[in-house]
Amino acid sequence: MKRVMLKDIKLGEVNHVAGFVESIRNKKAMCFIVLRDVSGKLQLTIEKANHPEMEETLAKITVDSVIEAEGKILASEYVKLNGMEMYPDTITIDSIAEPSPIVAPKGQETNIDLRLDYRWIDLRTEKNTLMFKCQSCFIARCREFLVQRDFIEIHSPKLIGAESESGAGVFKVDYFDRNAYLAQSPQFYKQMAMASGFERIFECGPVFRAEKFASRKHATEFTGFDLEFSYIESFHDVMHVEEEMLTYALEGVKEKYGDEVKRVFGIDIVVPTLPFPVMDLHDVYDELEARYGYKVPEEEKGDLTTEGERLVQKLSLDKFGHEFLFITGYSKECRAFYHMRDEKGVPCGYDLIWKGCEITTGAQREHRYEILKAQAEEKGLHDDVQFYLDFFKYGCPPHGGFGIGVDRITMIMFNLGIKDAMFIFRGPDRLNP
Amino acid sequence: MKRVMLKDIKLGEVNHVAGFVESIRNKKAMCFIVLRDVSGKLQLTIEKANHPEMEETLAKITVDSVIEAEGKILASEYVKLNGMEMYPDTITIDSIAEPSPIVAPKGQETNIDLRLDYRWIDLRTEKNTLMFKCQSCFIARCREFLVQRDFIEIHSPKLIGAESESGAGVFKVDYFDRNAYLAQSPQFYKQMAMASGFERIFECGPVFRAEKFASRKHATEFTGFDLEFSYIESFHDVMHVEEEMLTYALEGVKEKYGDEVKRVFGIDIVVPTLPFPVMDLHDVYDELEARYGYKVPEEEKGDLTTEGERLVQKLSLDKFGHEFLFITGYSKECRAFYHMRDEKGVPCGYDLIWKGCEITTGAQREHRYEILKAQAEEKGLHDDVQFYLDFFKYGCPPHGGFGIGVDRITMIMFNLGIKDAMFIFRGPDRLNP
Repeated sequence: MKRVMLKDIKLGEVNHVAGFVESIRNKKAMCFIVLRDVSGKLQLTIEKANHPEMEETLAKITVDSVIEAEGKILASEYVKLNGMEMYPDTITIDSIAEPSPIVAPKGQETNIDLRLDYRWIDLRTEKNTLMFKCQSCFIARCREFLVQRDFIEIHSPKLIGAESESGAGVFKVDYFDRNAYLAQSPQFYKQMAMASGFERIFECGPVFRAEKFASRKHATEFTGFDLEFSYIESFHDVMHVEEEMLTYALEGVKEKYGDEVKRVFGIDIVVPTLPFPVMDLHDVYDELEARYGYKVPEEEKGDLTTEGERLVQKLSLDKFGHEFLFITGYSKECRAFYHMRDEKGVPCGYDLIWKGCEITTGAQREHRYEILKAQAEEKGLHDDVQFYLDFFKYGCPPHGGFGIGVDRITMIMFNLGIKDAMFIFRGPDRLNP
Repeated sequence: MKRVMLKDIKLGEVNHVAGFVESIRNKKAMCFIVLRDVSGKLQLTIEKANHPEMEETLAKITVDSVIEAEGKILASEYVKLNGMEMYPDTITIDSIAEPSPIVAPKGQETNIDLRLDYRWIDLRTEKNTLMFKCQSCFIARCREFLVQRDFIEIHSPKLIGAESESGAGVFKVDYFDRNAYLAQSPQFYKQMAMASGFERIFECGPVFRAEKFASRKHATEFTGFDLEFSYIESFHDVMHVEEEMLTYALEGVKEKYGDEVKRVFGIDIVVPTLPFPVMDLHDVYDELEARYGYKVPEEEKGDLTTEGERLVQKLSLDKFGHEFLFITGYSKECRAFYHMRDEKGVPCGYDLIWKGCEITTGAQREHRYEILKAQAEEKGLHDDVQFYLDFFKYGCPPHGGFGIGVDRITMIMFNLGIKDAMFIFRGPDRLNP
């Protein structure tokens, strides 16, 4: 008989179900098992007098073991789980579990590092499974949005020959008789696709940062969702695509998982209104001071401080009733050399802040070879970026784009630290499992 | 005025268009430009007497430059390109191109290595752009198929602590004060997701192989599309999902790009019929000998030889009228230790051959800790796989899955070598661009 997911079992029918044992109470006359699969839970009730042949099997079953059961689904007023239970005719064991090494004493939380050591067990919780369903849904909606608009998906190389964007924080790889480096972002290659006339592209893949961060937002490897498109009139076109895509994605998550997220996390997924509010960085500082007394020395106002970023959550809600805020007008010293600059030398780009955390940097790119080369040199970049500069010598449309950290989005959506939000976290001291 | 893609221009309207200059003939009285964007081509016709102000601009335009033009779209019986042309009122230059370094003398083909050096120019051809539109569409359809079936997308780490599956062919990374290694596949982590109760997952991402292949099928980095799912009854469930997914994907490509592929490549995209034919490896050898006189020594019949793989294209067409063939019954010596084996010791898995090229290995996995550990030891694997073996100690459902090489699919679809089929090729001697 085909296995049926617990969300699809039907009252009065004989079903075949399978899952992990969430709990087992094996009493003298009765045995109660709570079974859990990816879609829900079900109580199995065994009257042992009716099933002497099950005795041996039941004695073997431990918490976390994987079993399958077949029997009639009945209504039950005693069972809280959807008011249904199964009286199985058969039970078989797929896998017997050793005792979980990460169960904390009652009332205590297991230490995060121990949980990460056994991440595959840690991921079994309702919260963690739901988190990755939402992440998966979010990304699927982003892709759907872009595919509908004829964006082409690319897969750019992660092994690169030069030390890339900044020269700092790059992992070195033994590559036969020479060195290779791990890409810090697909930036150069997504722009290359513009020089190739692909016009609209996106990529979702790993990015690598060899940096010893101490923050709860950083990892040495994470998933980037990047896109780039041609023939923009200004970076405002980039902002429009981003706000529309994010809104479409959050709409999808709310529709499919909103109720469950509310129940399990107590969090409301808010579908933002369009357009997102936009402020110049200097106006942000003025308002942070006027509203909350937050003062920053003039010379630091070219970038958003960490504390400023945190306060923007409040500002954005108080001023606009919005979780998102686009901030423009960063100083060129704080931006990458490939951002186009306006006639005043201000980068044609923005950051997007969601709930007090930067999730994206976007910009129109400088596509004119001579200017781009000068801007690279101004930042002290020469030979290592020459392969990239060459992309602009043989014709390239004006273009722009942005990148989102998938793990950071997840982290913010569920108000967690990065270690909790990643499928498998990687940091300077963590390469396992 | 908003730019309009060339596929969307309308006869009689004033449009704003933009693209690369495919050709320019700047004569005394007239100038003819063929403009190309990602969606099509258009002739721009300038009667110079009417536009003395354009003279300077026209003189600057070179082949491959990027320009924008605005003007009325008119019918023209002289122009082969969709019978339309534009008489622009304005032309502006976005980017002036230096002469292409990869233009071959008439009647000759540019050497592949030179083309790869300037891959971003090489990708501008109609063939290459179309190839990546098709690849993108193929993958989008695979994901759509899986998302509809509640598969969760995961992003597993590429930086790993141990040397992985086989110990051979792994890239070593300087990871702070120790070594890390680049994942050769997401195999271990997609199985981990099964132990986490995710039940159905997929991943699309880079995989790395530090091997000096000389074949036209291999690269040191390529894109894998992997999936894994739980509570299968046998590996035949895995085959069913694969044949259905591939059929759904090819259906999408044919529908959207079939005519264009026929016109540009002269290739018919064939949507396969379901189910795909299946043969045991020993029967394959028997038939290859009976039909085509291909003989193989008995001791080599546990795996499919390279020549056998090639001949399977013919066998599959002759015997079943099908481009695909599932082959089962490989010997355990030729399969990974994590493949489940039947009571006779035969691996519960298969290869899928498309047009004489292996595109996938799939299997039911061994989820029982003790048996898995013994199979690992039989292959000489101990400490390096212990972190993986641990995934099966604390409960794990029966499961199976497969992986597809995205670049190999592309290569076979268009009958090309791997260097031509990859966005950016990576080999032992190639890390640029």
